[in-house]
Amino acid sequence: MRWIAFLLIAVVIGAGAIILTDRASGQGGGEAAPIYGIKIPAGYRDWRLVSVAHEEGNLHSFAAILGNDVAIKAYRDGKLPFPDGTIIAALHYSHTASAENDKVFGDPQSFVPGPQTNVQFMVKDSKKYASTGGWGYAHFDKDGKPGTEAALKTCAPCHAMATRDSVFTTYAP
Amino acid sequence: MRWIAFLLIAVVIGAGAIILTDRASGQGGGEAAPIYGIKIPAGYRDWRLVSVAHEEGNLHSFAAILGNDVAIKAYRDGKLPFPDGTIIAALHYSHTASAENDKVFGDPQSFVPGPQTNVQFMVKDSKKYASTGGWGYAHFDKDGKPGTEAALKTCAPCHAMATRDSVFTTYAP
Repeated sequence: MRWIAFLLIAVVIGAGAIILTDRASGQGGGEAAPIYGIKIPAGYRDWRLVSVAHEEGNLHSFAAILGNDVAIKAYRDGKLPFPDGTIIAALHYSHTASAENDKVFGDPQSFVPGPQTNVQFMVKDSKKYASTGGWGYAHFDKDGKPGTEAALKTCAPCHAMATRDSVFTTYAP
Repeated sequence: MRWIAFLLIAVVIGAGAIILTDRASGQGGGEAAPIYGIKIPAGYRDWRLVSVAHEEGNLHSFAAILGNDVAIKAYRDGKLPFPDGTIIAALHYSHTASAENDKVFGDPQSFVPGPQTNVQFMVKDSKKYASTGGWGYAHFDKDGKPGTEAALKTCAPCHAMATRDSVFTTYAP
């Protein structure tokens, strides 16, 4: 029986490792966001960097923009419109002064990500999302709760004003 | 002879593709930075995200902080000190208002990366860099020109004031 117990322990440890890895690298799944039916893509936290962004006004938001492999290839190739399968992720945090860094620099000058606020996705599917410029939109708060239908309805009209296939973010070299 | 010509063309196209890929993903090599002898690590632009950063004062700098696989694993495991082989990259851009985005938002509130200013690296090698807390430091301007010896001498004393193994940046979830 010893080898069965060993096997069971190995399976449990293995499953634990998978769960931890999944959390660390951007847990997927969960509830789908309304209208577009998009769930959090598994592993998005491991995607490569597109750029960074900072919004003031009422937002005080600090973002990292990541892209899946299709997105990164399209950005680097300068290919527009983005091909089907493109997913762009915006990881949002509060734009927060770093007392720790300012102490070292001797000046109030350093800003870092505070608590995570939400994560948003743009998913390109030119057929499925034909009525919204080929893009589906999703928003999840820091606990994975999807945005409301009313809030998600505001995404497409605003993004339609972006000149590069509804995408505001350009690629940072 | 036709197949030889074809082969040559294929080789040239292949080499071209490799060079383009290399540029897009963070061209490595070039001149080594002084003191620590660090060259630009190949493929660093493909590394995963650690966090983002914004420095005002005289800097007006916008940064993406990326890490190689050793760095990302150590960050996610909460492991300190960072193990040998860790490399952390800071990609710096000017922190620039986006007239294009502000026009859509209707308010001057959006900031994006302007021109790339430099890229900096911290390389962990506890034996080689024992006299500077186990870290080697490198700075390259946007054209790949290394920082001066005088400038690089300022890295270690300042980083030594960071409480987490000389590293200021924490991991953004």
